[in-house]
Amino acid sequence: MLKGANLEGMEPMFLEKVDLSEVYFTRFRPGEDLFKRIAEVCKENNMERAVILSGIGSLCDVAFRDLKTGIDLPVNVDKTNLMKEYGPFELLTLEGSVVPLVGEFGTLKHEDPVLHLHATLGTAYGNIFGGHLFEATVFTTTEIFIAKVKNSSVKKKQSTVTGLTEMRTDL
Amino acid sequence: MLKGANLEGMEPMFLEKVDLSEVYFTRFRPGEDLFKRIAEVCKENNMERAVILSGIGSLCDVAFRDLKTGIDLPVNVDKTNLMKEYGPFELLTLEGSVVPLVGEFGTLKHEDPVLHLHATLGTAYGNIFGGHLFEATVFTTTEIFIAKVKNSSVKKKQSTVTGLTEMRTDL
Amino acid sequence: MLKGANLEGMEPMFLEKVDLSEVYFTRFRPGEDLFKRIAEVCKENNMERAVILSGIGSLCDVAFRDLKTGIDLPVNVDKTNLMKEYGPFELLTLEGSVVPLVGEFGTLKHEDPVLHLHATLGTAYGNIFGGHLFEATVFTTTEIFIAKVKNSSVKKKQSTVTGLTEMRTDL
Repeated sequence: MLKGANLEGMEPMFLEKVDLSEVYFTRFRPGEDLFKRIAEVCKENNMERAVILSGIGSLCDVAFRDLKTGIDLPVNVDKTNLMKEYGPFELLTLEGSVVPLVGEFGTLKHEDPVLHLHATLGTAYGNIFGGHLFEATVFTTTEIFIAKVKNSSVKKKQSTVTGLTEMRTDL
Repeated sequence: MLKGANLEGMEPMFLEKVDLSEVYFTRFRPGEDLFKRIAEVCKENNMERAVILSGIGSLCDVAFRDLKTGIDLPVNVDKTNLMKEYGPFELLTLEGSVVPLVGEFGTLKHEDPVLHLHATLGTAYGNIFGGHLFEATVFTTTEIFIAKVKNSSVKKKQSTVTGLTEMRTDL
Repeated sequence: MLKGANLEGMEPMFLEKVDLSEVYFTRFRPGEDLFKRIAEVCKENNMERAVILSGIGSLCDVAFRDLKTGIDLPVNVDKTNLMKEYGPFELLTLEGSVVPLVGEFGTLKHEDPVLHLHATLGTAYGNIFGGHLFEATVFTTTEIFIAKVKNSSVKKKQSTVTGLTEMRTDL
């Protein structure tokens, strides 16, 4: 259980009482870039932070990057596996949030929104495929409810403990 | 990527700022029809439009219809696969919405509620099965939080682009 | 379809109009016990009843107990299968609620919170694993939005019909 993990330098615990009363309901259309559209909806509606309350539809041209079995912390790119699939797939669940970045991470720059999205996708014979999504194109539709996270000051910064961007309110 | 798709006649983009503050919490019981009970809860509580915020439990006698791999738009019944399974299964996720129909689609008539539900179901050995659900019976329970979508005028109509019913606010 | 099930003694139907406006946003950290942290967040914020609106991240050391195929009601431990896996896994969905218990169930005592959690977990090659979760350790993070269920009097008690703890408002 997290054997060998060095938890020194761990980010402080945070918990915020937030307000999700401002909700946007939208549909993304065939051929649209899922990540670009979520970022646009956030920007156009002044959502610096957001959470997806529901997202279903169908996607194609998806890319995932997932943790390999048996790895230790911190995570780096060699401890993950990249998958790309055309599909199309039923989008069964879309969960995640948008939080602004402190510093840089991969191709993201300081203050860019970090879209952290996990999805499960269904195939024609019922098998399900999924993981940490980082590319996707809308096939028929994506019907999405996304809430502004009000009363939050959370940001993300790369963690020396996990190797990934983690949430903190002390920056 | 959507090669060959004819996107002419695409429905206009829509985005609505909605109010999900009215939430109903209920349990469906063994032997109940999941679709019938969701429709009843909506009707009895004057929810013309609704979204599922959480739904877990267990189901049996399920039917799914899912997109085949490699298909193009528009979708028709020959590009999908029907699965029927007894189970029972753990209901791991239930996501989706209820939106009124304009015109007809399959067995649905004008102004009928369209229940668009996607589910993931677990088996005893951890494998997961799922897709676009259209029939299910409650096995032990379905614990559900469903919100009325207030301040919305969205309806669904069959799309010439996707072949399925798509959301629009221009009707 | 539920052939042979004895539905006498079924719990009454319940439906409550609830208020989910009080939402807590938190991050669980590497090595933390998912169940213990959810229970602590509920206790420290006076949430007798709660529902998870979103939960993603990664988990290790997970245990599930899932229904076997073809079983009848009532469920007992012999009709379920236990799985334990180290992982780590991407946490793709975390759905469920916290409701106080009436009487006893397994190791739970009267008035203990019942954490009913269903999860889907992704592996490096896209396969998904999941079910009724009862043990899990946070690997890199768990980013969670959990709402207090206000205006509810629901409790859970073991059901003679299903064998499991079921929700009711008549106790």
